[in-house]
Amino acid sequence: MTPQPLSMLDTKKSRLNPRVAHIPPSGIRAFFDLVSAREDVISLGVGEPDFATPWHICEAGIHSLEVGQTCYTSNSGMLELREAAAAHIEKFHGGKFCPQSEMLVTVGGSEAIDLAMRAILQPHEEVLIPEPCFVAYKPLTVLAGGTPVPIPTFQDNGFLPSIEDLEKALTPATKAILLNYPNNPTGAVISKELLEAIAEFALRHDLIIISDEIYLLLSYEGRSPSFAEIPELHDHLIMIMGFSKAWAMTGWRLGIAAGPYDLIAGMTKIHQYSIMCAPTFSQVAALEALRHGDDEVRHMQKEYDARRRLICHHFNRMGLTTHVPKGAFYVFPNIQSTGLTSQAFAEQLLEKENVAVVPGPAFGDCGEGYVRCSYATSLEDIREALERIERFVKQI
Amino acid sequence: MTPQPLSMLDTKKSRLNPRVAHIPPSGIRAFFDLVSAREDVISLGVGEPDFATPWHICEAGIHSLEVGQTCYTSNSGMLELREAAAAHIEKFHGGKFCPQSEMLVTVGGSEAIDLAMRAILQPHEEVLIPEPCFVAYKPLTVLAGGTPVPIPTFQDNGFLPSIEDLEKALTPATKAILLNYPNNPTGAVISKELLEAIAEFALRHDLIIISDEIYLLLSYEGRSPSFAEIPELHDHLIMIMGFSKAWAMTGWRLGIAAGPYDLIAGMTKIHQYSIMCAPTFSQVAALEALRHGDDEVRHMQKEYDARRRLICHHFNRMGLTTHVPKGAFYVFPNIQSTGLTSQAFAEQLLEKENVAVVPGPAFGDCGEGYVRCSYATSLEDIREALERIERFVKQI
Repeated sequence: MTPQPLSMLDTKKSRLNPRVAHIPPSGIRAFFDLVSAREDVISLGVGEPDFATPWHICEAGIHSLEVGQTCYTSNSGMLELREAAAAHIEKFHGGKFCPQSEMLVTVGGSEAIDLAMRAILQPHEEVLIPEPCFVAYKPLTVLAGGTPVPIPTFQDNGFLPSIEDLEKALTPATKAILLNYPNNPTGAVISKELLEAIAEFALRHDLIIISDEIYLLLSYEGRSPSFAEIPELHDHLIMIMGFSKAWAMTGWRLGIAAGPYDLIAGMTKIHQYSIMCAPTFSQVAALEALRHGDDEVRHMQKEYDARRRLICHHFNRMGLTTHVPKGAFYVFPNIQSTGLTSQAFAEQLLEKENVAVVPGPAFGDCGEGYVRCSYATSLEDIREALERIERFVKQI
Repeated sequence: MTPQPLSMLDTKKSRLNPRVAHIPPSGIRAFFDLVSAREDVISLGVGEPDFATPWHICEAGIHSLEVGQTCYTSNSGMLELREAAAAHIEKFHGGKFCPQSEMLVTVGGSEAIDLAMRAILQPHEEVLIPEPCFVAYKPLTVLAGGTPVPIPTFQDNGFLPSIEDLEKALTPATKAILLNYPNNPTGAVISKELLEAIAEFALRHDLIIISDEIYLLLSYEGRSPSFAEIPELHDHLIMIMGFSKAWAMTGWRLGIAAGPYDLIAGMTKIHQYSIMCAPTFSQVAALEALRHGDDEVRHMQKEYDARRRLICHHFNRMGLTTHVPKGAFYVFPNIQSTGLTSQAFAEQLLEKENVAVVPGPAFGDCGEGYVRCSYATSLEDIREALERIERFVKQI
């Protein structure tokens, strides 16, 4: 029996849940199918550290294998790891979560977002999502039966939403707000004032804030604030941290959700049946990362910072005005001066100069006129890519 | 802000999706809360190999860390692993799946079941599930919006469903059948004849068979057949294999789903947003397991077989008649002769003799009158547990 992929998809669409059938494939993915067909491409496309995981963190994982820790942990994850994560959050942000009842170890930050949506959303309940945003937020909302309500943000406002924008989007069906600062793809960091205003807005309307703070330790101009800093928000906050970005641990698939007991209990119920537990040695490695990984995080953060300055300087110099990112590891240059759409810009840049960037609309409609460039790429590659982009822009 | 878990759960139930709020906690879990409060318990309760992962498989994982393979893989999983898994399925069962388009690497078999349900079920579509069954099947069906339809099975029929039972349960809303042979908790193995009859039934009614074949390599009386052996079923089968049981890799969290392109594409769409990819070194280790792990699987299978004979012999001798399991690593003795309910039997056995077994109703209503004992426990512990159980049964 030879599989006949395409014909099958045509004739049997109805076997899938329509929610699943209608979700568009990731814009990033579509673009990378183009990229993978070429050779010698410099990619500024991938949202993944170019660093390998620091060695002592790997060693902790290796040691756990050597002593035969190859079994399940508790569904919620190792208590020691939850305790260390709670201590980390308290040390950096003053937020208090009970390791026994208010924390869940997940398969990366993405599982935590999926679980949060599945736990809280009833059909057609709405989630306010400032855009541009990470490609998974809208699909995960739709898959959980909810309705994503995009809140467009713009360069002249630092890619941050205003309380007025949020108020205007509010309906009786609004259940939650999904936020991500430092932001992918814009690098925007939220101010303490706006953070407090959004918290006040959420409390006033009894909304749940799901805060994806996976880039929190990658901030470049002072500390980026966390929603965990607001004690009054505790019962309305699901805070998500992950090890993929700051500790360069993408392949380990490890994240942590912290929140009030009832919501974490609901998320844990789904997780215990769908995943059982996060990988055991990834948990052991994450514990090491929290206990002894601060120096490496600082080292990588400094390295990203140097690249950030270089890349912003050059984009602005060549006339692609760029909001200076204060966190994460992306720039989101404005390419409207070239007269090209984001898609055309990215495609022609790839075609002519072999440099891959992601068209802005992959992150929401308001991303049109922008492209995302990751600077989690070696300085050498960034320099070469910038030269090629400048040549490309000049000849348009 | 001190968390106040219980009061919060009382007052805020409505914040959760009612599906999530109403799912009962796992019966296994409830019982193990009792167990964990005691010392020196011999546990026959856990469905987890007492073997550590074979060392050369661990070494493959360790080597991948040493060479810095700490990044994401493709969403579908490493192509090499999918190719090896397709070759494994073809070698053992003759079933053909395309590694590029018909296979997905998942976080354990449980994620694969969750994805299958989420991909195919529309609200209130029904899934036929023979019981007793693994504790996650019903909750995962409900979480995906479907309705589980239990098909009770009984000891005198070898804990297998008949086609008549399935026919009777059929309604216009029936979408799928979820099967698990070798079976947890009964150890039942399906005959090739029944397997073909169920396949014919599924094709006749255009149903999807989700076959959880995680225990397939742990069969003791000849080879246990796989639904992948029936070429005609290809477009209606989602076959799930996992590394947790046969290769003793629970903590690695790795499974594989194989099926027709349209269904695997739907599952992959959910997986790419909710999980991204399975852990990278777990994938590397699983590849080693498939390539060079046959001897260890055979070794563990022989060891389980010896324990199986011992435990069946003793249960039958002490008057707890036991269907002889032909696969997996559980026995499901009938304890009705003691006059106790399953729950009372398990509780009193724990109380008086410090032996933990799982009450049968944790696996479905028709499990009343039985308890599940895992023989993935050392021979020494099994011997001691059997002595204690015999003493307990005699004094009733």
